[in-house]
Amino acid sequence: MQYERIKATQLLDKVTTAEEAASFIKHGMVVGSSGFTKAGDSKLVLDALAKQVRPDPFKITLVTGASLGHGMDGKLANAGILAKRMPFQVDPILRKAINNGSVLFIDQHLSESAELLHNRNLPPVDIAIIEAAFIERDGSLVPTTSVGNSVTFAALAKQVIIEINTKVPEEIYGLHDIFQPEDYPHRNVIPIVAPENRIGRRSIRLDPQKVVAIVFSDVQDSPADIAPPDLKTTAIAQHLLHFFEQEVKKGVLTDRLLPLQAGIGKVANAVLSGFQNSNFYDLRMFSEVLQDSTFDLLDSGKLTFASASSITVSSACYDRVFGNLQKYKDRIVLRPQNISNTPGLIRRLGVIAINTAIEFDIYGNVNSTHISGTNIMNGIGGSGDFARNAYLSIFVTQAASKENQISHVLPMVSHVDHTEHDVDILVTDVGLADLRGLAPRERAQVIIDHCVHPDYREALQSYFERAKQERGGHTPHLLEEAFSWHTRFRETGSMK
Amino acid sequence: MQYERIKATQLLDKVTTAEEAASFIKHGMVVGSSGFTKAGDSKLVLDALAKQVRPDPFKITLVTGASLGHGMDGKLANAGILAKRMPFQVDPILRKAINNGSVLFIDQHLSESAELLHNRNLPPVDIAIIEAAFIERDGSLVPTTSVGNSVTFAALAKQVIIEINTKVPEEIYGLHDIFQPEDYPHRNVIPIVAPENRIGRRSIRLDPQKVVAIVFSDVQDSPADIAPPDLKTTAIAQHLLHFFEQEVKKGVLTDRLLPLQAGIGKVANAVLSGFQNSNFYDLRMFSEVLQDSTFDLLDSGKLTFASASSITVSSACYDRVFGNLQKYKDRIVLRPQNISNTPGLIRRLGVIAINTAIEFDIYGNVNSTHISGTNIMNGIGGSGDFARNAYLSIFVTQAASKENQISHVLPMVSHVDHTEHDVDILVTDVGLADLRGLAPRERAQVIIDHCVHPDYREALQSYFERAKQERGGHTPHLLEEAFSWHTRFRETGSMK
Repeated sequence: MQYERIKATQLLDKVTTAEEAASFIKHGMVVGSSGFTKAGDSKLVLDALAKQVRPDPFKITLVTGASLGHGMDGKLANAGILAKRMPFQVDPILRKAINNGSVLFIDQHLSESAELLHNRNLPPVDIAIIEAAFIERDGSLVPTTSVGNSVTFAALAKQVIIEINTKVPEEIYGLHDIFQPEDYPHRNVIPIVAPENRIGRRSIRLDPQKVVAIVFSDVQDSPADIAPPDLKTTAIAQHLLHFFEQEVKKGVLTDRLLPLQAGIGKVANAVLSGFQNSNFYDLRMFSEVLQDSTFDLLDSGKLTFASASSITVSSACYDRVFGNLQKYKDRIVLRPQNISNTPGLIRRLGVIAINTAIEFDIYGNVNSTHISGTNIMNGIGGSGDFARNAYLSIFVTQAASKENQISHVLPMVSHVDHTEHDVDILVTDVGLADLRGLAPRERAQVIIDHCVHPDYREALQSYFERAKQERGGHTPHLLEEAFSWHTRFRETGSMK
Repeated sequence: MQYERIKATQLLDKVTTAEEAASFIKHGMVVGSSGFTKAGDSKLVLDALAKQVRPDPFKITLVTGASLGHGMDGKLANAGILAKRMPFQVDPILRKAINNGSVLFIDQHLSESAELLHNRNLPPVDIAIIEAAFIERDGSLVPTTSVGNSVTFAALAKQVIIEINTKVPEEIYGLHDIFQPEDYPHRNVIPIVAPENRIGRRSIRLDPQKVVAIVFSDVQDSPADIAPPDLKTTAIAQHLLHFFEQEVKKGVLTDRLLPLQAGIGKVANAVLSGFQNSNFYDLRMFSEVLQDSTFDLLDSGKLTFASASSITVSSACYDRVFGNLQKYKDRIVLRPQNISNTPGLIRRLGVIAINTAIEFDIYGNVNSTHISGTNIMNGIGGSGDFARNAYLSIFVTQAASKENQISHVLPMVSHVDHTEHDVDILVTDVGLADLRGLAPRERAQVIIDHCVHPDYREALQSYFERAKQERGGHTPHLLEEAFSWHTRFRETGSMK
């Protein structure tokens, strides 16, 4: 049965074990692996690699689409074989290794890894591991639940290992739209003018000569952990929906809004769930990941079409989607991440981008990645690709956390991922700050008035007043005090 | 003679004085004015406005393309009539007013003002002032030395004042390529795939009904101040040219390079001048401003074509260009700034972007706008549009200044305009740091080794070592010490 998934019959003799396949990966290699937001990743070969005993030293550079499932990044980090990792991760063990300096991490805009590889601004990919639903007669690959950077890896890697995942039905054929921009200096237009446009192939071109091993797996993607909406995320969602309703009332937007992008996580899910009981209709998504809430909105008819690079859902939703693929196939598309996240398309389509911040400051600068300016959490992911080019760039976070010992609105962020130039709307459970058309001093007052937890409002107002008085400037700051909230937290466990 | 410049003869009776024209501008209005890098700006009407005695209160919001010439921003600031100003300025008097809080400034990516106005994310433009070479029979405007945001102002303003500048020959017709993206949600592709592509009209469409006044001027643009290359700028240019040569040797780039963008100023001029005696040929520019060096390269045959939004040159160069327009007309084009600077085109063309930093830090974050985190210098201009989407994003600055009392390479920048995610190459007179494919801890060492002035190298290395040791993390920092160089300078006049 499973051999029928290799329609390029000349490749049948490449079928082997995960251990054998992993042995093609040598010390010093750059490995490109499929996998984006835990979807469509290598389940067996990377796992075998992590378990293999290799002569010292054995280190690789691992490039993926985005995050991996099944704790794979942690297993590889624990095995001590990661020299360098890019462009994104969410694993607690790997995070620790990055922060103690034992793994070097390159935190990259998700649209850019493919660019950097094609442009030879990064070292060449030696070997690729790509999860596929099946191999076409011509050797091309039909991907599974994500596309990520697999098109680039298939094109550039010298050797390719294929993991055929038999859990994913062959009927997935047609879900993907595979298009790669031409290399410089002869790059043409990417002819997408609406989220539903299909412009490419249904499979990833691959020279069969490069295939060194094929492995069968029947392991499902790691399920998404969906936290149900709570008081804070519901409040954030309500502020945001109310804002959209006002924009419609003003005649700036219609009830169809504009294509939506939502970062991963519970706030995004709460916002999307909020649309369920709204007057908005005929919505579209142009995003990087499709979550449970996407399929709820498709089912209820609120959402007409969704474009992304991956499907990352709970177990129940996974069964719903892959048990009813025909129902969804005309209404979703998965693209390479350098298409789903490409700046030009995000601006052309006028995307409304909703992403999560770790903290933001009174002038609207956003930190999406670092704790106290030093320790990385996950990475910038696609937030920069979208925020920088969106019709509306929205960032959300809770006003305070840890029994209000931490304020997420600060005098100055300890690390900047999104500058004040790129942030239109900030939302916390306390309220929403509309920063459009405001100068820094105006932004500060609006943010203090609308977004700050009451426990911190007075202190933040005082900082702003003293900065204006003592230093002045376009963006008043007391540099010697700008990080005092962070340092106080480090010393006392509270920002108060 | 000058009346022949009004080919839409029904508008002849709109000719009036600058004072009369300025009187159409009322308290509280949003005024959109042509002018980009001191080129093609209003010479008479804004000047008359600044001189008029008006009943108190009289305040306006002024939106331009970019900076204005003839000290106009200073005159308006001195007159106390600017409530708000966007998206860019370079005037010392206005700068002071912004920094003391009396004028509110919105520092905006140059590609975005038109977007924000069309999308109604900013208040509507009440009245526009547009410099033109002549008015076509159909009422459309042929611009002069810049296009800037004039297409947007002409489309959106309720009333329009035209300044016909008779210093600019009518032969300028054909130099401009006027194209505006469609409004959302029906925006199409911008069909430019090479700097030389022309896709639009030769004049700016304008409803003649909106014209309230026409004024004749014969005042030339403010000349660019071109500082001749000095030791430092020459060193920076040489490091950069050497880098390009190495990229060619490695086979990553060809001798034709990729389309060049260069920010305004003496470093950019030095770099472009450096190409004169290089082996590079058939170069193209896809930039926002054409400076003297552009025309030198066109004359020598090094440069094949240059696309921008304005021509800002010295007096001598101005005469050379406008005395020989036919010679240059097929080799340059001026576009609206939301085309010259649009993210999608910059990525599609693979632009090599060279911009000036005020300071950068050991992890490669760049401050382009603020002194000591508070006082604005000019503004972000187009640097973000380009850096964020370029094939190579390069920032240049001197390693140290003020008799080396200021280091421009710091533990942490006091304001972030370009994040580490968007910076590939840093250059100072000391050397060049190639940050591609490097994690933050690697970036720090390369920057310290190659870019820092020797007087500061030890201190910066010490900061980095102690941050790694005491705090660790993906991006090691000692937050309580991160700005100590800035605060020391404030207190002692030296960062040492």
